[in-house]
Amino acid sequence: MLFKVEMIVNIPESMDPDRRAEILATEKAYSQELQRSGKWRHIWRVAGQYANVSIFDVESNEELHTLLTGLPLYPYMEISVEALCRHPSSIREDDR
Amino acid sequence: MLFKVEMIVNIPESMDPDRRAEILATEKAYSQELQRSGKWRHIWRVAGQYANVSIFDVESNEELHTLLTGLPLYPYMEISVEALCRHPSSIREDDR
Amino acid sequence: MLFKVEMIVNIPESMDPDRRAEILATEKAYSQELQRSGKWRHIWRVAGQYANVSIFDVESNEELHTLLTGLPLYPYMEISVEALCRHPSSIREDDR
Amino acid sequence: MLFKVEMIVNIPESMDPDRRAEILATEKAYSQELQRSGKWRHIWRVAGQYANVSIFDVESNEELHTLLTGLPLYPYMEISVEALCRHPSSIREDDR
Amino acid sequence: MLFKVEMIVNIPESMDPDRRAEILATEKAYSQELQRSGKWRHIWRVAGQYANVSIFDVESNEELHTLLTGLPLYPYMEISVEALCRHPSSIREDDR
Amino acid sequence: MLFKVEMIVNIPESMDPDRRAEILATEKAYSQELQRSGKWRHIWRVAGQYANVSIFDVESNEELHTLLTGLPLYPYMEISVEALCRHPSSIREDDR
Amino acid sequence: MLFKVEMIVNIPESMDPDRRAEILATEKAYSQELQRSGKWRHIWRVAGQYANVSIFDVESNEELHTLLTGLPLYPYMEISVEALCRHPSSIREDDR
Amino acid sequence: MLFKVEMIVNIPESMDPDRRAEILATEKAYSQELQRSGKWRHIWRVAGQYANVSIFDVESNEELHTLLTGLPLYPYMEISVEALCRHPSSIREDDR
Amino acid sequence: MLFKVEMIVNIPESMDPDRRAEILATEKAYSQELQRSGKWRHIWRVAGQYANVSIFDVESNEELHTLLTGLPLYPYMEISVEALCRHPSSIREDDR
Amino acid sequence: MLFKVEMIVNIPESMDPDRRAEILATEKAYSQELQRSGKWRHIWRVAGQYANVSIFDVESNEELHTLLTGLPLYPYMEISVEALCRHPSSIREDDR
Repeated sequence: MLFKVEMIVNIPESMDPDRRAEILATEKAYSQELQRSGKWRHIWRVAGQYANVSIFDVESNEELHTLLTGLPLYPYMEISVEALCRHPSSIREDDR
Repeated sequence: MLFKVEMIVNIPESMDPDRRAEILATEKAYSQELQRSGKWRHIWRVAGQYANVSIFDVESNEELHTLLTGLPLYPYMEISVEALCRHPSSIREDDR
Repeated sequence: MLFKVEMIVNIPESMDPDRRAEILATEKAYSQELQRSGKWRHIWRVAGQYANVSIFDVESNEELHTLLTGLPLYPYMEISVEALCRHPSSIREDDR
Repeated sequence: MLFKVEMIVNIPESMDPDRRAEILATEKAYSQELQRSGKWRHIWRVAGQYANVSIFDVESNEELHTLLTGLPLYPYMEISVEALCRHPSSIREDDR
Repeated sequence: MLFKVEMIVNIPESMDPDRRAEILATEKAYSQELQRSGKWRHIWRVAGQYANVSIFDVESNEELHTLLTGLPLYPYMEISVEALCRHPSSIREDDR
Repeated sequence: MLFKVEMIVNIPESMDPDRRAEILATEKAYSQELQRSGKWRHIWRVAGQYANVSIFDVESNEELHTLLTGLPLYPYMEISVEALCRHPSSIREDDR
Repeated sequence: MLFKVEMIVNIPESMDPDRRAEILATEKAYSQELQRSGKWRHIWRVAGQYANVSIFDVESNEELHTLLTGLPLYPYMEISVEALCRHPSSIREDDR
Repeated sequence: MLFKVEMIVNIPESMDPDRRAEILATEKAYSQELQRSGKWRHIWRVAGQYANVSIFDVESNEELHTLLTGLPLYPYMEISVEALCRHPSSIREDDR
Repeated sequence: MLFKVEMIVNIPESMDPDRRAEILATEKAYSQELQRSGKWRHIWRVAGQYANVSIFDVESNEELHTLLTGLPLYPYMEISVEALCRHPSSIREDDR
Repeated sequence: MLFKVEMIVNIPESMDPDRRAEILATEKAYSQELQRSGKWRHIWRVAGQYANVSIFDVESNEELHTLLTGLPLYPYMEISVEALCRHPSSIREDDR
């Protein structure tokens, strides 16, 4: 089940640089593990913004909530979620 | 070069049903041809809406403009465009 | 899987009264059948508005889309959808 | 008398972790007591957000105000209220 | 139980003048009857607008909905509703 | 001359509790004195909000400005003002 | 007593050209008479818009309402009103 | 050349009272000097707000920018600018 | 003197095709004449929209208003105007 | 490939003046180097605002992202991006 998730990141300037580096490394590892598992299907950077557009493929709303609130950067993100379905004109097997 | 394109469709209720059926068939064929060519990378339906979220992969802004304004349903669409880039955390070869 | 769905109804004043009565009767029957099946879990009227707040319990985003676009009044509705989950503080078995 | 209440929670990052744990525990107890009394009829988590959608069943606007401003997290919440009524198509006895 | 209700009126220019005069007369009579009954506690014109700010005093959300949807001009109104309570600083007996 | 004034209060959490109690007491006395003088005609609490809806009856825009900026809580308020007139359908002598 | 009034004009394209010319002439005469009387203190065109920014100097909100709703173009205008006062830094006698 | 300029002032509560008094005095002197020079044609207080509506008469956009950014309170202001022209219905010589 | 002007075009679908072709040809000629004169400094198409972003270089707000309201498509345009100045970091002679 | 980029700058008042001067100097040098290279085609100041309107000419969305996130003031900017194309009515060779 697919969801478009848009994330805008606002890390406070006052965060300690080491803490910042650490949280960003953890975030990257977390994201890549979810990508490898197929749960986080796509992620793109929005040009000019500290923001991304992502597609998640999950079993349920609950699973989506768990994955998103588990993001290391979650406390610093503004998140919006939109439920998607397969489009009747789609020819790609995996756009479902 | 990737763009997220969101399209909301508003076909006037007064449109002749045959004209409507025809324009929808043409739209589907147009979309699928662009999908096969790789220009229209993804298309998903937004749940509960007559709207889609799409990813285009084009050579330039001009090409994007030409493809979108060529949509048979273009006169009945509200379109928003956002330029995307490869995300540094992405592990998918083709999310670029 | 739960979704909050808000529907605002705008039936054009020019609609033939018989057609209007018919479509409203069909809408009511459609809604009640879905309520009996458990798919449409709750429906409330918004005070002072021709609008409702509803809770749907469906298998997937696709099923939600099919149910909503099947509404007889769908062409005259403005619809917004929000994915819900069980709340960790909830004590009701069926608020999941 | 029913009201839809949406609550968005913003706890300041600077809050002491013990104080935070304590206020969250108090909030949960407060919410569950109101749920048991039947005043707080439903509560759902919004997927991906630190927010809930709730239905309250109260005697009056005053009672609603008292219950909401009594929330331990009230100083950290953005709250919106919408008055609801029984929907003429509803088949559930308790959606009134 | 008090509610602030704001009504913006948009009568289509194409309405037959006799029909318009009739509906306005009916609206005025309806409003004044509700004012005499104490249900419609206050009504003021917004300066420069075809709009009013009103205070209703009703038994329930349902009664408010019935009164508002019974307005002869209801089909031509944009209505917003806000639940009010007695203010702890109020010294007027009837501002409850 | 009537004005609807809506006030949303945001007292910083960091305010000293004694200072807070003092300013709230002063605010209440100020409000009640203006109510007794007939300048502050009505005040209602918005359900679920730290906000009020008020009706002022003043000689001029200047007087309204002086009364509002004299509110002890003024530095912590978001205020909106709307000029009102007697409504032609009103039957209350004092809704002018 | 001063008010800033902003007016956006939307005359329907379908209006008969003679009717249009007549209503515009009446509007101009009406505006100039009010300017001569001192009630309509200033009027400026917004660059690039069919809109104006005006300053009215009236006895009361009621008078403002009467003047604005008497505008020949009133049915085709979107109007916003803001109450003004003399500014403590003003050095112009008539900016009151 | 005329511009409507709206300024909303937000001085941080933490500003030292002496610094505040000094900056306000400087602002007043600056404003009055520009009023005397004819550059700042009008200034009115918005009722109930720490805000003003002003009319500037300048040689160019550059001059407007220089005057506005030179305001002692500029760092604490939210400013909006709208280009104005003489209105064809205006009868005042100096509303140009 | 420079202005950014954004124009969104909405030609009604009901316009006669010959009238449409004629008005578009006139618009193009009008735009190109102003470009040649140096008044309309730049014009770009917004990707995916029937809209443009333009830079005008005019003597005054009045001249801008005259040029814009003279656009053959003006009745079908939504226009927004923003006054610009030379940027202190600019190295281009003609970005003034 | 052209993009309109709008940047609003918000430097925190608490920034050390030397740091501020340094960052502004670096920003200016960075901007001018990109202007000389032809990547940053135009930059204008918005009258009355600490903001600019710019036109970038880049190879790709990625290049735009790299240039923008490399701005010394990037952490203090609110940025919006719009993809542009050559306009069919343009007569300037370099407005492509």
